[in-house]
Amino acid sequence: MKVLVINAGSSSLKYQLIDMENEHVLAKGLAERIGIEGSQVSYEADGKEEIVVKEKLEDHGDALNIIIKELLDPEVGVIDKIEEIDAVGHRTVHGGEEFTESVKIDDKVIQKMEEYSDLAPLHNPANLMGIRAMQELLPDVPEVAVFDTAFHSTMPDYAYIYSIPYEFYKDYDIRKYGFHGTSHKFVALEAAKMMGKPIDELKIITCHLGNGSSIAAIENGKSIDTSMGFSPLAGLVMGTRSGDIDPSIIFYLNSKGYSMQQLNNILNNKSGALGISGVSSDFRDIEKAANEGNERAILTLRKFCYRIRTMIGAYVAAMDGVDCIVFTGGIGENSFLDRAQICRKLSFFGVKLDRYRNREETGTRFISTDESKVKVMVIKTNEELMIARETIEHIND
Amino acid sequence: MKVLVINAGSSSLKYQLIDMENEHVLAKGLAERIGIEGSQVSYEADGKEEIVVKEKLEDHGDALNIIIKELLDPEVGVIDKIEEIDAVGHRTVHGGEEFTESVKIDDKVIQKMEEYSDLAPLHNPANLMGIRAMQELLPDVPEVAVFDTAFHSTMPDYAYIYSIPYEFYKDYDIRKYGFHGTSHKFVALEAAKMMGKPIDELKIITCHLGNGSSIAAIENGKSIDTSMGFSPLAGLVMGTRSGDIDPSIIFYLNSKGYSMQQLNNILNNKSGALGISGVSSDFRDIEKAANEGNERAILTLRKFCYRIRTMIGAYVAAMDGVDCIVFTGGIGENSFLDRAQICRKLSFFGVKLDRYRNREETGTRFISTDESKVKVMVIKTNEELMIARETIEHIND
Repeated sequence: MKVLVINAGSSSLKYQLIDMENEHVLAKGLAERIGIEGSQVSYEADGKEEIVVKEKLEDHGDALNIIIKELLDPEVGVIDKIEEIDAVGHRTVHGGEEFTESVKIDDKVIQKMEEYSDLAPLHNPANLMGIRAMQELLPDVPEVAVFDTAFHSTMPDYAYIYSIPYEFYKDYDIRKYGFHGTSHKFVALEAAKMMGKPIDELKIITCHLGNGSSIAAIENGKSIDTSMGFSPLAGLVMGTRSGDIDPSIIFYLNSKGYSMQQLNNILNNKSGALGISGVSSDFRDIEKAANEGNERAILTLRKFCYRIRTMIGAYVAAMDGVDCIVFTGGIGENSFLDRAQICRKLSFFGVKLDRYRNREETGTRFISTDESKVKVMVIKTNEELMIARETIEHIND
Repeated sequence: MKVLVINAGSSSLKYQLIDMENEHVLAKGLAERIGIEGSQVSYEADGKEEIVVKEKLEDHGDALNIIIKELLDPEVGVIDKIEEIDAVGHRTVHGGEEFTESVKIDDKVIQKMEEYSDLAPLHNPANLMGIRAMQELLPDVPEVAVFDTAFHSTMPDYAYIYSIPYEFYKDYDIRKYGFHGTSHKFVALEAAKMMGKPIDELKIITCHLGNGSSIAAIENGKSIDTSMGFSPLAGLVMGTRSGDIDPSIIFYLNSKGYSMQQLNNILNNKSGALGISGVSSDFRDIEKAANEGNERAILTLRKFCYRIRTMIGAYVAAMDGVDCIVFTGGIGENSFLDRAQICRKLSFFGVKLDRYRNREETGTRFISTDESKVKVMVIKTNEELMIARETIEHIND
């Protein structure tokens, strides 16, 4: 069984064709600058060199046409006929309160997703462009929507409700939704395997740390809280996003002459690690600057790690315990310095990092000592594989 | 030595005259509706009945004149001559980055407080009205300003900096200041006495829970983090204040037609417990409604306690440990239900509440079991006494 996984942005489209017999990626790539001058599609069949097709892409349909052509290509292709694609799985961002798990796509699902576009104006319309283009191209192939919010739908009401007038929840759907759900779910399942225990007997804290970052508290396999909220702006210090701040700051800066549009842009695109450091939104650049003695870069990393550490503490309290803490995402998988700084002061909880495992080893592994009461691990996330698995699971919904 | 403690609001003035030989309150009361129709001053000498003087109060000076008159009154007065007042201590809210401790008031201090009025527009100007009126009335008596922010000035930079462009800190003084410092300091010192240990060997979490609520992490006697922020809007669920929310909610509601002024008012005056419950901002009313089965009231209490519990967890991580947790303030001192709900799921940290001590006993006391690894106590706060103590300490600055 082969599943094509699609992650459609407004002007981009990432894809992977995965053979689910062995969960092997047959081919993958990225269409870029769709609808913009200079568009192109990259394509890389397993074990072969990447090729780049530079061609005008008017829309997501054009991009998918090229992708399918390459998949069928006699030389670099990986399938003989289009019918070998058994299903398509779409990464979709916002499932609102309706979609508490992945769902086979039909007109009703599309209509609901359109309704939620207001809640995710940057993502849902783009996801829908990918879905519609795929439906036109492969009308007979079942498609599944795998929502970033779905895994967090198990949060109890006291975790998702905001302490603002209740009417805003009823009338405007304002509540905590959480994001990165596919990644949190994937690494939590992997963590349970590594722990050798069923996931429904574990308390897991998953730290997805990348350009966007979030933490989830996963009790008995269910997300019970997460740091992103109504939007992906909330929570931790991110590349350019502020995370949680005192809401008064917005009113104060507005009174100083900053417009709402400016402030929205500042908090989403000029804050976070970029805002504190003034150096970059890329943590590799900030670590470099910190090593060279840049004080604001040092402060940025301290703040970043402090917020993660205190959020871990909050979620230990949320679950009244923790069995393991997982680091994933670009920073979580690669920055041993940040992991060390985060875990250094978690000894009260029973966390003991193994310096060698943390610094010298790579890939998915335990990084706590054998004696550590709370296990800590690095797990390479794989959202595409999780989407493919979910797709198969929901293909007959 | 007798100290007059003044807490001046924009149209009110609370006062206590304290004999510092035995820290006994000689007289206390409240001037209300200053500058508004129906103004009055209440006065209660120790051991006597409260009397109420209904008189027109044009300004804070008028109120203080009546207060002094009552203090000297042959019948209900507690001092024979005005010179018996050795010092005046003012509760002052915002000391910015300048005032890291209490300070004897002079022209420079007043000027600095004026500069910080922009950061605390509801409080600093009112505090200054009280100071100026007192200076006119008792020009030769030393006065001390005891700032609500001062105790938190020991926070490290990674706790107080916001992850927004650094220029906002430099140009607009936007950082975490924290409030309720006088109360947090008072109960932390009391907690150390109860623990029988020097405060600089303890990790203490103080929960000041009232109409406004905040939590502080106090390591070795120093506040290293607190839940209020740039303003007292941040942090926990309060009577009418939202505490922390996803900043996107403000932009979203603004796009739905709510003005900044409306939103500022909503988050400060119509959110928090009132907003969720729709019942009241008074937790006694909400507990009553919850007992009667009101679902939103039940949700409100769960949310309130959950946020406190997770904030405690965050501060345990911040200090990598905790020796004792203190409850104070109107709710903290009186609601055994909330305390039980907060502590119920802190067993992983080593918290074990004693049901009898929590429910049946009153006043300042331990409410954890003797075996509890982390001690929990209720401590009656006394900000006025703390202000009087600080006043004596800084009278010769």
